[in-house]
Amino acid sequence: MIPSIEWVNQNNRSIVKMIDQTVLPHELKFLELSDYRDVAKSIKVMNIRGAPAIGVAAAMGMALAALEYKNLSKDDFLKKMKDAAKTIRMTRPTASNLFWALNRILEVVDKSIGTVNEICEEVVEEAILMAQEDIIVNKNIGKHGAELIKDGETILTHCNAGSLATVQYGTALAPIRTAIEQGKKISVIADETRPRLQGARLTAFELNYDNIPVKVISDTSSGLLMKLGKINKIIVGTDRVTSDAVFNKIGTYLVALAAKDNNIPFYVAAPTSTLSLEETIDDVEIEQREDSEVSCVLGKIRIVPEGVECLNYAFDITTFELVTGIITEDGVFTAEKLLEKYRK
Amino acid sequence: MIPSIEWVNQNNRSIVKMIDQTVLPHELKFLELSDYRDVAKSIKVMNIRGAPAIGVAAAMGMALAALEYKNLSKDDFLKKMKDAAKTIRMTRPTASNLFWALNRILEVVDKSIGTVNEICEEVVEEAILMAQEDIIVNKNIGKHGAELIKDGETILTHCNAGSLATVQYGTALAPIRTAIEQGKKISVIADETRPRLQGARLTAFELNYDNIPVKVISDTSSGLLMKLGKINKIIVGTDRVTSDAVFNKIGTYLVALAAKDNNIPFYVAAPTSTLSLEETIDDVEIEQREDSEVSCVLGKIRIVPEGVECLNYAFDITTFELVTGIITEDGVFTAEKLLEKYRK
Repeated sequence: MIPSIEWVNQNNRSIVKMIDQTVLPHELKFLELSDYRDVAKSIKVMNIRGAPAIGVAAAMGMALAALEYKNLSKDDFLKKMKDAAKTIRMTRPTASNLFWALNRILEVVDKSIGTVNEICEEVVEEAILMAQEDIIVNKNIGKHGAELIKDGETILTHCNAGSLATVQYGTALAPIRTAIEQGKKISVIADETRPRLQGARLTAFELNYDNIPVKVISDTSSGLLMKLGKINKIIVGTDRVTSDAVFNKIGTYLVALAAKDNNIPFYVAAPTSTLSLEETIDDVEIEQREDSEVSCVLGKIRIVPEGVECLNYAFDITTFELVTGIITEDGVFTAEKLLEKYRK
Repeated sequence: MIPSIEWVNQNNRSIVKMIDQTVLPHELKFLELSDYRDVAKSIKVMNIRGAPAIGVAAAMGMALAALEYKNLSKDDFLKKMKDAAKTIRMTRPTASNLFWALNRILEVVDKSIGTVNEICEEVVEEAILMAQEDIIVNKNIGKHGAELIKDGETILTHCNAGSLATVQYGTALAPIRTAIEQGKKISVIADETRPRLQGARLTAFELNYDNIPVKVISDTSSGLLMKLGKINKIIVGTDRVTSDAVFNKIGTYLVALAAKDNNIPFYVAAPTSTLSLEETIDDVEIEQREDSEVSCVLGKIRIVPEGVECLNYAFDITTFELVTGIITEDGVFTAEKLLEKYRK
C-alpha cells in the first residue's frame, strides 16, 4: 500500500508528492508539485481523486500557497490565501471534503494571531495533521466495518474508495483490509465503473498490489451476480452524505437497487468529513463532465460515432431507504441513527 | 437503413452478405460468405449479432450448406445437413432464434419428399422467406409499440435491438422508428452496453445514420437520468422469453429495477420467435464469454491490471414483475396475457 499523497521536504523545499492515478494500472508514476495551482489542476483532471484524498490535496495545496506568500504583508497574505482557496474550490463541485478541508485551513488562517511566518507554519502543520488523521479515520472505519464481514464472503464495491481515494488504507476497502488482517478469507468483485474506470484500473490495481483476491466485472453485471448468489455484501464510499441521500460515483444507485431486490446488505463507508447533514438532495450540484470521457475510453479509443453526443453525470443519488448502514470512524449506523448522532 | 444481412445471387453463385458489426461505428464493411462454416464463425465472433439477425444468419448458413451438398446422395445430404445445423447451433447458447431457425430449416428438410436438388431449393427459399418475414414482424412490432409512445418523449434503450440486430427495422427500435414515421418527435438515450458496447457503437450508429436524435450514456447513468426525469419510457429487445423472465443483454435487469423505482414503463420488444414459454429461468444457460471483452476494450486497450481476472456473463435475467408490457408482432401484452396467448 503506497500513500496516494504525501507532504515531502527535500532539498530545502516542500513538495506535494502524489500518485498520478490517470496512468494506473499500467504505470506507477508520481507527480511532485510545488505550486498550489498545479495541485488544483491535479484535482480537476483527476490525477488525484476520491473525496478524502481530494480533501488532503486541497489542504496541502493551501500549504503550498502559504509558503509561496510567506513574504507578503499579513493583509496581502490573507487575501492571497482566500484567492488560493477559491482556485482550489472551483476544481470539483460534488465532494464535501474539498470544501471541508479548505474551510478547516481557512479557519486556521483566520483564527491565528501569529505573524505570517507563524501562520504559514500552522497551515503546513494542519495539512500534515489532516493527512495523518485521514489514515486514523480509515483504520477506524476498517475496524467497525470488519465486524460486518464474515469469513469467506465476497464483497462487491463500485468505483474506488480505497487507499488511492484516501491518503492510505481507504474507506470502502478499509473493512475488507481489516477483515483480511483479522485472518478472514475475503474476495472482492470490482465494478469497472465507467466512464473513468476507477474500479477496473484503481481498485483492481491496489487490491492486486496487496494480494487481495479481486475480479473485475462490467457495470452491467452486478445485478445478475447478486441474483446468482455470488455476492454477500456491498460496500461503497461516498463523496457526500446529505440528510436524505448518499452521493457517490455514478452507478451506485443501480447497485443499491439490485442489492435491495436481492436482500443483500448495502453499506456506505463515510468518514465524518463527508457528512453534510444540514443539506438535502436539492442542495447538491451533480458534476457533469465532458462528453469525451464517455465517447472516448481513457482518451484513447472512440467508441461512439462521430457527431453523436453523450451525457456524463459523475455522481449518483442513493436515497437512504436503499442503505443498510453507514460506517463512520465512530461505528456503524442506520441512516436514522446517523442523523441522530451527527446532525447539528 | 441498410439490411444487416442479405442473400445475394451474383455471378452464378449465392453468397450471404452481412455488415461486419465488429468494426462499426467507424467503418461500414461487408462480409461476403459462401461457406456455412464461415457463417457459423461470424455468429460466434459476433460479426453479426442480435437474436433475430442470428436466426436469419443461421437459416442462410443452412442454405449455403444445402448448396454445398447438393451433389450428394439423399442419405448423405440429410446427414450433412444435420452436421451443419450442429456446427451452427454450437456458436451461441442463449438466443432462442438460433434454435428456432435451425429447427425450422431442418423441418423443411425432413418433411420434403423431393430430390436433393428440390430440397436444396426449398431450403434456400425458406431462408429468404425468413428474412422477409423478419422485416414484416418488426414493422408490426413498430406499429403496436408506436401506440405507446407520445410526441416529445425520450426513450432509453439498452444494447442494440435495432435494424442491425434484425434483418432490418429492428425490434426495440421499431416502435421508435414507426413513431417518428408518424410525425412524432422522439429522442433516444442509448446505454453504451459494456462490455461489447453495442449501444455506443451500433444503436448510436444506426439511429444517427437515419437522423434519429440519440445520445449515449455510460451504463452507470440510467438510474440517475430516470430520477432526474429525463427518460419517459424504456424499450429493450430480448434473446429469449421464458414463462417467468426476459433474457436480454447483461445490464437489462438494472435498467428494469431503476424503471420500477421511478415508475417509468419498461417494455420488451419480443418477436414471437424469441418466445420459449415452455421453459423457465432454470432451463436457460447464460453464456459466459472471454475475460478479454471486459479487460480489454474492443480488443484495443487493456483497462484491468495484468493478472487480474474478470467475470463476463453475457445475458441478464429480468423477471416479469419488472416488465410493464411485451410487444410482439401481434400486439402489446402484460406477461400474464402473453402466457395466456402463446403458451402451448
